[in-house]
Amino acid sequence: MTTDQTGAGLPAELVALRRSIDNIDAAVVHLLAERFKCTQQVGRLKAEQGLPPADPAREEAQVTRLRELADAAGLDPVFAEKFLNFVIAEVINHHIQIANPAVARHPGSPSGDAS
Amino acid sequence: MTTDQTGAGLPAELVALRRSIDNIDAAVVHLLAERFKCTQQVGRLKAEQGLPPADPAREEAQVTRLRELADAAGLDPVFAEKFLNFVIAEVINHHIQIANPAVARHPGSPSGDAS
Repeated sequence: MTTDQTGAGLPAELVALRRSIDNIDAAVVHLLAERFKCTQQVGRLKAEQGLPPADPAREEAQVTRLRELADAAGLDPVFAEKFLNFVIAEVINHHIQIANPAVARHPGSPSGDAS
Repeated sequence: MTTDQTGAGLPAELVALRRSIDNIDAAVVHLLAERFKCTQQVGRLKAEQGLPPADPAREEAQVTRLRELADAAGLDPVFAEKFLNFVIAEVINHHIQIANPAVARHPGSPSGDAS
């Protein structure tokens, strides 16, 4: 197997895979930046309209849909659900901070206008 | 504000934002499916070549890069780092399962060929 000078003697195939992983991670980070822009607008809108922050039916629909998409794409549906919960926890954290900047970051809070 | 019939009386703007969130989530799920394909190849390659599963220098470089990308994209760099750690934990979990299918899922394991 050949090695790549930029990969400090690592196999070229490993260096190439790492470049793909880095590209994918960059794409995901930019998509998540867009997602948080959307959820910030959702938070503002719900506050303006007096809508409840949490919507369990919406969250359930999101989980079901993402598990199906993951399954079709060859991704573990359990991981897809964990990922969604991870992101939603951060959204809730943002909303708590927006509502009350004095509150410490608390990603494990139980519910919020994440959807 | 107008409402959208498909959104059960919700403001049309909220329904539109949710559709964008759903599209972004679908894109992220598909990118993560591709990412796990890459890391599975990395795992196989490292095993074939007798390379160590963990590479702390690589992981440090990934964290630094993603934090910078996140900052430039308006995403909290702390969240970007948490996200990377979350994904790497799952990669390690996959590799543990591949290496020893009898081992229970354990996403919190300390290190692995996640990079």
